[in-house]
Amino acid sequence: MTFRSRLAAAWQSNNSLLCVGLDPDLNKFPAHLKGRPDAVFEFCRAIVDATADLACAFKPQIAYFAALRAEDQLEALIEHIHARHPQVPVVLDAKRGDIGATAQQYAREAFERYQADALTVNPYMGFDSVEPYLEWKDRGLIVLCRTSNPGGSDLQFLEMAGGRKLYQHVAELVATKWNPHGQAALVVGATFPQELADVRAIVGDLPLLVPGIGAQGGDVEATVKAGRTADGSGLMISSSRAILYAGQGEDFAEAARAVALATRDEVNRYRG
Amino acid sequence: MTFRSRLAAAWQSNNSLLCVGLDPDLNKFPAHLKGRPDAVFEFCRAIVDATADLACAFKPQIAYFAALRAEDQLEALIEHIHARHPQVPVVLDAKRGDIGATAQQYAREAFERYQADALTVNPYMGFDSVEPYLEWKDRGLIVLCRTSNPGGSDLQFLEMAGGRKLYQHVAELVATKWNPHGQAALVVGATFPQELADVRAIVGDLPLLVPGIGAQGGDVEATVKAGRTADGSGLMISSSRAILYAGQGEDFAEAARAVALATRDEVNRYRG
Repeated sequence: MTFRSRLAAAWQSNNSLLCVGLDPDLNKFPAHLKGRPDAVFEFCRAIVDATADLACAFKPQIAYFAALRAEDQLEALIEHIHARHPQVPVVLDAKRGDIGATAQQYAREAFERYQADALTVNPYMGFDSVEPYLEWKDRGLIVLCRTSNPGGSDLQFLEMAGGRKLYQHVAELVATKWNPHGQAALVVGATFPQELADVRAIVGDLPLLVPGIGAQGGDVEATVKAGRTADGSGLMISSSRAILYAGQGEDFAEAARAVALATRDEVNRYRG
Repeated sequence: MTFRSRLAAAWQSNNSLLCVGLDPDLNKFPAHLKGRPDAVFEFCRAIVDATADLACAFKPQIAYFAALRAEDQLEALIEHIHARHPQVPVVLDAKRGDIGATAQQYAREAFERYQADALTVNPYMGFDSVEPYLEWKDRGLIVLCRTSNPGGSDLQFLEMAGGRKLYQHVAELVATKWNPHGQAALVVGATFPQELADVRAIVGDLPLLVPGIGAQGGDVEATVKAGRTADGSGLMISSSRAILYAGQGEDFAEAARAVALATRDEVNRYRG
C-alpha cells in the first residue's frame, strides 16, 4: 500500500486533514513528566493516543529528538504508532538533502531504522539528491516548496528569467519530473494562501503538507480554500505547538485532544 | 577562538588544505573490523590518527552514522579528535535547514551534543533558518552554494531575472548579509572550476569547502587555482572515499595516510 493510498484512507476514516506535529520540547512539558528518562516518549505517546482518531498523519520533527539524544525514543514512538494506530501514517520531518550516496544512508535511516511512511526533503541539491528515496516505492517523499517562515522568501520568492518564482519552478519540477511512481508531495506554508492556490494549480491533486496554522498564525479558512482539491482533500494541515502545549497539567493530553478536535472541525467547515 | 581562526591555524600548522571526510560504510570496511560493535568508531579513529598531521579539518557525514544507529560512536569520535588532535577542527556534515525554532534544536545537536566546530547548512529556507546557529559565535556555518553532484544544476544553475544564477545569488547573500560575525563559509563543488572562481570573486576570502575531488572526479590543479585566496589558502578540499577505502587489509590506515599525503602534496603544488 503506497503512502498516498494510506493518506487517502486516513483522510476518509478519520474525516480529517489535520497532521499532528510532534516537536517535544522538555521546557514546555507538564511538571509530572520532567526528569523521567522516558519523558519524550511518554509525552508524545499520550498526545498520539489522545488524537489518533482525529489526525490524517503524525509528523515527528527529528531535530527535537536529536537535540535530546532521544533517537531510541523516536524509534519507540513510531513503533507505537504503527502498532496501535496503523491507520495514521507517520511523516518524519527531517528535511534531508544530500548527494546520492549520502541520500541512500538517509533513506535507510528514515525508512528502515525509523519505519517512517514519508520523509520531508530539501530540493536545493536537485533530482539526484531525491532519487534514492524513490526506491522505497511504498513510502512518500515530501519536497520543500514554499515554506511558512519569513525567510522563506529569501530564495523561494526570487524571480527567475521568464518571470516565475523559484517555488513555482520547484512545484513544476516535482509534479512533472521528480514523481515517476506517484510518491511525491510538497510542503507549502499556510502563511501565503495565494501561493498555496498557485501551487495547487501547478501540481493537480498532489498532496500538500501545510505548516503554519496555529502558533505561526496562518488563517484556516483561507488555507483550506486555497489548497483543497476538488474532492475537498489533498492537504495535511500541520499543527504542532498549539496542540502539544494546549495544557500544562496532568491532563495535557485531554487539552491537546480538545484543540485537535476544534482544529479538525474548523478545517472541515471549509472543505467545500 | 573562532572556527575561522582555528581553520587558519590548521592550514598553517599542517601545511594543508585537505579536509578528510569520514563516511563510514560497513560494506567497505576491512574484514578484521566487521562484526565488532564499535567498528564505526574504530575505523574512523584509525583514519583520524593516521591523517591528523595532514588535514586542515575532519568532516564526519552524519547520515552514515544515523543509518547505523551509531550516534554514540559519532560522539566518541569527535571527542577523540578534540582530545588527541585539537589542532584539527571538526565540520559536521549534516546540511540542516529548518525554521528558527527547529534550527535551535539542530544547533544544540551539532554544537552541544556533538561539539562540532562547524556545521553544513542548506540555504533554501532563508536567513531565519540560518540565524539561530550564529548565536554560537565560536562556531562556523558552511552554507551550500554550488554542489558537486550532477543534479546540483537543477536549481542552483537556474538563471534569475537580471541574469545571475541562483548559486551566485546565494554566494552574495551569504557574503553580504548572512555573515554578521565572520562565521560563514560556503560549499562549492570541485566539479565546476569556473563556478568556483566565480564564487571566489563574489565572496572575497571566505573559506570554501570543496567536495568533488577523488571519487567524484574533480581536477585538483583546476580546483586549487580557481578557489585559492591571494595567500594560497581559503580552501577545505574534501576527499572521503578515495582516502577511507584506499586499502582493504589490516593496514588500511597506512594506505589511507599514503593517499592523504599524496593528495595534500598535490594540492600544495598549486597553491601558488
